[in-house]
Amino acid sequence: MLTLDQLNRADRSQLTALLDGIYEHSPWVAEAAWAARPWLSLAALKVALSTVVREAGRERQLALIRAHPELAGKAMLSKTLTAESNNEQGRAGLADCTPDEFARIQRLNADYNTKFGWPFILAVRGPNAKKEGTGLTRPEIIGSFERRLAGQPDFEFAEALRNIHRIAEIRLNDKFGVLPQQGQQVWDWAESLAEFSDPVFKEAGQLTVTYLTAAHQACAQRLQGWMRTAGFDEVSLDAVGNVVGVYHGGDSGADGGAKRGPDSGSDSGPRRLLTGSHYDTVRNGGKYDGRLGILVPMAVVQQLHRAGRRLPFGIEVVGFAEEEGQRYKATFLGSGALTGDFDPAWLDQHDADGVRLQAAMRAAGLPGTLEAIAQCRRDPSRYLGFVEVHIEQGPVLNQLDLPLGIVTSINGGLRYVGQVTGMASHAGTTPMGQRRDAACAVAELALFVERRAGAAPDLGSMTSEGTAASVGKSYQGAAASVGTVGMLQVPAGSINVVPGRCIFSLDLRATANPMRDMLAADVRAELENICLRRGVSFTLEQTMAASAAPSDPAWQRRWENAVQQLGLPLYRMPSGAGHDAMKLHEVMPQAMLFVRGGNSGISHNPLETITADDADLCVAAFAQLVEGLAAE
Amino acid sequence: MLTLDQLNRADRSQLTALLDGIYEHSPWVAEAAWAARPWLSLAALKVALSTVVREAGRERQLALIRAHPELAGKAMLSKTLTAESNNEQGRAGLADCTPDEFARIQRLNADYNTKFGWPFILAVRGPNAKKEGTGLTRPEIIGSFERRLAGQPDFEFAEALRNIHRIAEIRLNDKFGVLPQQGQQVWDWAESLAEFSDPVFKEAGQLTVTYLTAAHQACAQRLQGWMRTAGFDEVSLDAVGNVVGVYHGGDSGADGGAKRGPDSGSDSGPRRLLTGSHYDTVRNGGKYDGRLGILVPMAVVQQLHRAGRRLPFGIEVVGFAEEEGQRYKATFLGSGALTGDFDPAWLDQHDADGVRLQAAMRAAGLPGTLEAIAQCRRDPSRYLGFVEVHIEQGPVLNQLDLPLGIVTSINGGLRYVGQVTGMASHAGTTPMGQRRDAACAVAELALFVERRAGAAPDLGSMTSEGTAASVGKSYQGAAASVGTVGMLQVPAGSINVVPGRCIFSLDLRATANPMRDMLAADVRAELENICLRRGVSFTLEQTMAASAAPSDPAWQRRWENAVQQLGLPLYRMPSGAGHDAMKLHEVMPQAMLFVRGGNSGISHNPLETITADDADLCVAAFAQLVEGLAAE
Repeated sequence: MLTLDQLNRADRSQLTALLDGIYEHSPWVAEAAWAARPWLSLAALKVALSTVVREAGRERQLALIRAHPELAGKAMLSKTLTAESNNEQGRAGLADCTPDEFARIQRLNADYNTKFGWPFILAVRGPNAKKEGTGLTRPEIIGSFERRLAGQPDFEFAEALRNIHRIAEIRLNDKFGVLPQQGQQVWDWAESLAEFSDPVFKEAGQLTVTYLTAAHQACAQRLQGWMRTAGFDEVSLDAVGNVVGVYHGGDSGADGGAKRGPDSGSDSGPRRLLTGSHYDTVRNGGKYDGRLGILVPMAVVQQLHRAGRRLPFGIEVVGFAEEEGQRYKATFLGSGALTGDFDPAWLDQHDADGVRLQAAMRAAGLPGTLEAIAQCRRDPSRYLGFVEVHIEQGPVLNQLDLPLGIVTSINGGLRYVGQVTGMASHAGTTPMGQRRDAACAVAELALFVERRAGAAPDLGSMTSEGTAASVGKSYQGAAASVGTVGMLQVPAGSINVVPGRCIFSLDLRATANPMRDMLAADVRAELENICLRRGVSFTLEQTMAASAAPSDPAWQRRWENAVQQLGLPLYRMPSGAGHDAMKLHEVMPQAMLFVRGGNSGISHNPLETITADDADLCVAAFAQLVEGLAAE
Repeated sequence: MLTLDQLNRADRSQLTALLDGIYEHSPWVAEAAWAARPWLSLAALKVALSTVVREAGRERQLALIRAHPELAGKAMLSKTLTAESNNEQGRAGLADCTPDEFARIQRLNADYNTKFGWPFILAVRGPNAKKEGTGLTRPEIIGSFERRLAGQPDFEFAEALRNIHRIAEIRLNDKFGVLPQQGQQVWDWAESLAEFSDPVFKEAGQLTVTYLTAAHQACAQRLQGWMRTAGFDEVSLDAVGNVVGVYHGGDSGADGGAKRGPDSGSDSGPRRLLTGSHYDTVRNGGKYDGRLGILVPMAVVQQLHRAGRRLPFGIEVVGFAEEEGQRYKATFLGSGALTGDFDPAWLDQHDADGVRLQAAMRAAGLPGTLEAIAQCRRDPSRYLGFVEVHIEQGPVLNQLDLPLGIVTSINGGLRYVGQVTGMASHAGTTPMGQRRDAACAVAELALFVERRAGAAPDLGSMTSEGTAASVGKSYQGAAASVGTVGMLQVPAGSINVVPGRCIFSLDLRATANPMRDMLAADVRAELENICLRRGVSFTLEQTMAASAAPSDPAWQRRWENAVQQLGLPLYRMPSGAGHDAMKLHEVMPQAMLFVRGGNSGISHNPLETITADDADLCVAAFAQLVEGLAAE
């Protein structure tokens, strides 16, 4: 087994030899990485290697891709592959291809090569880290192949490199004899929790868990069971369906918190660290959105419990029952209950089947009274603060080949729905200069929004202490603002009618409220200009306003320290999406940690994915955070 | 009664005195028009007066508008109005306002004045020319008021001037003691025919007559009845439901034509002029689209018959049963039957209620056999050519204040449906530079189409022999090409999701096929560029290709001569819409005459309108055309 110490002491040629085969037929990667020694961790080495590739230029990158064998079918195994590739493809069961599958793979190989000019590369051992006989299934492999074949060349080029880094990661793990056990635990929990899905979606093989359905209740049950096994001292379901696990601080467990209600005296023991995220999902969603933020601190508590350790503060992990606002329009219901922000009118809302929210609560065995719900409210003075781990739900970390990101702020947002009204007229008989085309007006607006939001400075920032100095050089990262026209439609449009009406939506977000408001003012002014110039009119109705939630500096620093302890570069970025932390922000300091999402960070989608290795780094970072806090 | 001769002999101040009150409190209009004498016709005088106003500049135009009284309610009548205005508003029944209506008009007056800064002007005596007690109803007046109050200021300014010209036209008719009798006949026929509508639409007060419905059959019956009364020699319904009326040529009526079938010998008498248009409508359509082209030649034949005149050629007027392709996807079925272009597969088509076309034919008493339908085919050698009168269905003539236009070509067109596929992603977390937004790609395309089609040269051309030389100076007219993205939609778009897919349509038209094809090639090339640059992909499927149908030069000249005989300027323009003439173009020479549509030329809409005066000019032009032809 290789050790980090060996690598850090090796000269350039020794290092190259030690890392032989990590990057297929490409010793130059290890050779160039030598300058970045010493590495504080295996994770740091992985980042250094991927950084070398990232900065090698297109020609060497292409050579690296082409150094890989094609995905083999049965007949080709053992013939053209390196021992390592042979092993990996064999594990993935490619040796057992049916003749049909083999033919299909051969055809896909040919099509892919024709389209892109390089071989299809896939880390067939997949995102998790089980020891033997696992990896992607043949249908999964063929599915990925087909999906990626449809992709755009630049994107697919980068995706090939990312798969090469993943292959290198798995090979390094093997060489180091390392298994990301905590991460695998989290990964397995997420898999297991994903077995529950609302009926129609379950039949379709999709994951959908909306508020208080049977699947939702089953998730809550399972989470509670795991918490008890993990060693939490108190595990319960609160009046809105939040799963609450408390791991007491000190030796006595006499820490304060919710259980004693808002009136609890100041003598009720050490304060708690509050953490958690939501376990409900969007329709046909991913396995990690929300849930990761419950499972990661569960793994940390499990470690503490196994080690028999108590911290000077309690840890309260909340699995929020509702964040997505899918079944009822009651977004952030779960975390809102903790901040006393439960809207009584919500009880009277009906879902698509006409079920009142209150009735749904009672059917789930919850009291369904405002009095009981009011008991969920936390006394902020009993808490140190709130931290939340979450999958990024965006492409930034994935594109930077970085596992973790530090959230600087949750973006504030404004949403609008609008309509432009022009004059419907005959597409054949109305000269271009005499039209009042509502769709063209909205087209101008959409392009302005894109340009204006994109002109905001890049707010992603990288500190690379302890790693290759070149990490983070001029990468495009998370932006200060984003703007989207997500809904766009000419109602009852006809091929031969100049659009008289066009409806659209606007979603504008920025890291700070003034920036958000300036963006909105500019967009509105441009809409006015466009409409005046085109002789059309518009309506614009604001449907949502959310304030930005900047991370608390002290808590952000704690996450930064934790990430640095892992030997990883610090990448600071805003969160474009809203999170439960946004709600807790109203009553206590908060800061978030992001983990990279695979498949370009796709989210609210079954393709949402993380690796067990990245999950392991999350658990390690969270453990570092609580250790650092304990040492303060 | 005033005569044209009086005006043409008057000096400037005499003229001003003679035309006093035609333009409210604005003698300068008549004064300036003096230079344009002599006028060949009352229509020429009207054009000259409107031309003066058109070229007077915004300030004088505004003064002219402001010289008009507000629309009065009961209480104000007789107080502030000129005798003429009082008379007009009284005729429209405004003197009998209910208190509610009066209050409503006062409120509308106030709102309108606040919005535009000038009084609301409406030619309350309406588009027709009945002698007494008629004009717009109070609900019609209030409806127009409300609709125009919602308009865009520049547009409404022009609309006010157009109403002033219409008021002047009516006042001139009164002074000259002239009634547009032929036009009124056509107008009344169109009104009467519009009484029939398919049931659901009839209940809603809308006009919809689709192929072979009861309303459609009733139209055919009524047309046949009118043709008989008008003096047609042969009136019949053919195998596809076309109404065919023949007025024989010579004294014998022994002209050739369809009745003798394709095998008829060359000795079968004089050839015929073929004319007509369709009597079916789109859903919730207008009263003139198509029908005008049947009614105008009916009026001409009626005149000939009353005068006991025979021409050296027969006139065959066809009311085509189907042009719009509404009930069945069999566009141009009526005229197609005459050119032998009936697709046998059409017989098997089903309408929305599952009724087969063949069954619909039989239910309507038609044979429904291909043999019978083949009998509809005309032998082109038996015809001189095809002419068609049609409402413009566009804003050009209306904007130019011209009643008639000469069609130079029916535009060729290409239609496509397309889709851009990008990558759906989170609107909050996806930085602007990392998006593959399908809707923004289509937005760029829509704006390119608008720019590229609009860059084609203006093909409208004006000859103003016999009228004020300044007529037609630099007016924006009909363009050589038009392009429209009429359908545009992000399917299942969400406010917080970057569009991953956007569907759209393209309608591209130009006066000649090479121009049409260049336009299409440029649009396609730009779509490729946009998609390449944005890393998105597209599909584009052509759904229709129609060849341009340039007017036959000799027949176009005959229309030009006819219009010039009326003292009107010649305005030549392409037709953006398709017409039955496009179909006949395949087998014989054709040329079309356009008449101005009110309400900015809106078509396929209940607001479609023409004046009895303009209809009268159509009848006169058609009569001139046949007289010219007879004299050749």
